Amino acid sequence: MKDFEITLKVRYAETDQMGIVYYANYFIWMEVARTSWFQHICNKDYGRLETEDGILLPVIEANCKYKSAIRYPDEVKIKLTPSIQKRLYIEFDYQIIAREKLCAQGFTKHILMDRQFKPIRPLPKFITEAVKQ
Amino acid sequence: MKDFEITLKVRYAETDQMGIVYYANYFIWMEVARTSWFQHICNKDYGRLETEDGILLPVIEANCKYKSAIRYPDEVKIKLTPSIQKRLYIEFDYQIIAREKLCAQGFTKHILMDRQFKPIRPLPKFITEAVKQ
Amino acid sequence: MKDFEITLKVRYAETDQMGIVYYANYFIWMEVARTSWFQHICNKDYGRLETEDGILLPVIEANCKYKSAIRYPDEVKIKLTPSIQKRLYIEFDYQIIAREKLCAQGFTKHILMDRQFKPIRPLPKFITEAVKQ
Amino acid sequence: MKDFEITLKVRYAETDQMGIVYYANYFIWMEVARTSWFQHICNKDYGRLETEDGILLPVIEANCKYKSAIRYPDEVKIKLTPSIQKRLYIEFDYQIIAREKLCAQGFTKHILMDRQFKPIRPLPKFITEAVKQ
Repeated sequence: MKDFEITLKVRYAETDQMGIVYYANYFIWMEVARTSWFQHICNKDYGRLETEDGILLPVIEANCKYKSAIRYPDEVKIKLTPSIQKRLYIEFDYQIIAREKLCAQGFTKHILMDRQFKPIRPLPKFITEAVKQ
Repeated sequence: MKDFEITLKVRYAETDQMGIVYYANYFIWMEVARTSWFQHICNKDYGRLETEDGILLPVIEANCKYKSAIRYPDEVKIKLTPSIQKRLYIEFDYQIIAREKLCAQGFTKHILMDRQFKPIRPLPKFITEAVKQ
Repeated sequence: MKDFEITLKVRYAETDQMGIVYYANYFIWMEVARTSWFQHICNKDYGRLETEDGILLPVIEANCKYKSAIRYPDEVKIKLTPSIQKRLYIEFDYQIIAREKLCAQGFTKHILMDRQFKPIRPLPKFITEAVKQ
Repeated sequence: MKDFEITLKVRYAETDQMGIVYYANYFIWMEVARTSWFQHICNKDYGRLETEDGILLPVIEANCKYKSAIRYPDEVKIKLTPSIQKRLYIEFDYQIIAREKLCAQGFTKHILMDRQFKPIRPLPKFITEAVKQ
């Protein structure tokens, strides 16, 4: 899978009194990137994926390393690289870039669950295929 | 109904780069106050109200007047006064107090809906009774 | 001033357990619209407006009427109409549209302040001019 | 340092359409815990720490492992254990407990900076002392 990339603009609401983007908001941006990726690979959006197909994608681990502050109203680029780990879960790696500088990087790990919160194994083919490409 | 009151402490996350609490967060505090009130009147919490009784309480209007800035780490008192309007909807009035000063006041209006998003009319007795007291 | 308009996509993080966008988030969208307008009228962004020119734009009142639920991943259009009220403050009126339907409308009122939190009066010409056009 | 502990109640606003607490909000709770700890150790609150002493505490890494979903309106206990790492930065370890179950655990790493965003080294004595106790 080639890198997938989205661009967003820092919102004023995302800053805190230190004058920079509040750290928890990076995880919101990561989710904007991965739900966009889902939409991209299945030609359907993640909202429908949840309701129609009954697939949930809960996070089991989230991590972010902060290298350089991001400020309002920076434009932010998020590069996402998905991979399948141990055939069991999906990992997304993120690079968060502003002012042409790598300002943060992180990852999230996810399992797939059905509406009864039971893991879906093996992973659906349309996902493993998309990651390989 | 006598005034109902809760106290909370400003979270760092609730500030913005102006150095004060971001304006949309007042509406989150209002909800903390009214869900606490619901828990108080029915001896059950609003979460259960939703899932067990199938009652939703969507907002149809929200308003806040901002008089004086609130800062981290102020302690904030929220006074809530509920009323029934035209037998159709519930109005909550809020006074938001910090450093012994009325810093903001607002209201929210709500209808009651069932899980199919259809209005519940007339309003359930345990609610109209609680408001009168 | 002709209507000014922005488009954004509902974020998963903006939903709540009722399955719809949480009501306080509409006020964040309103701010995205009005800061974009500021950037548009002064060819500088609101972030710079704050730090360079020392102008703050605190909210004195905010209001939203909710007509129809907005869901993830709806695309949302926000139409903004600014006006000067009583030569003292700026009002922005918002129409929030999803699925070609007016789902909510609201307003915010703002005064202009300097870094010492003192009101700037009269309003700067570049603002009154922009509103008139 | 013995464990430090806070308790908070899940807010409706913190849920998402999956019906559980949105993952980024755990990081907000972590901050509520560590700013409370700061207030506890220095008898002054973190807000004042920032403005009076000119000390900032930016995050350089944040991590959370999610084991079991937390729902509205759970009561949540957050246990915090601070430590000094390599004499350079502070690490906080968090255990997030609901319904008497360890639902998540995580850490954040922080450096100390002055108002010019330059690292403060060595770490101030009142902090290293507090961590040792």
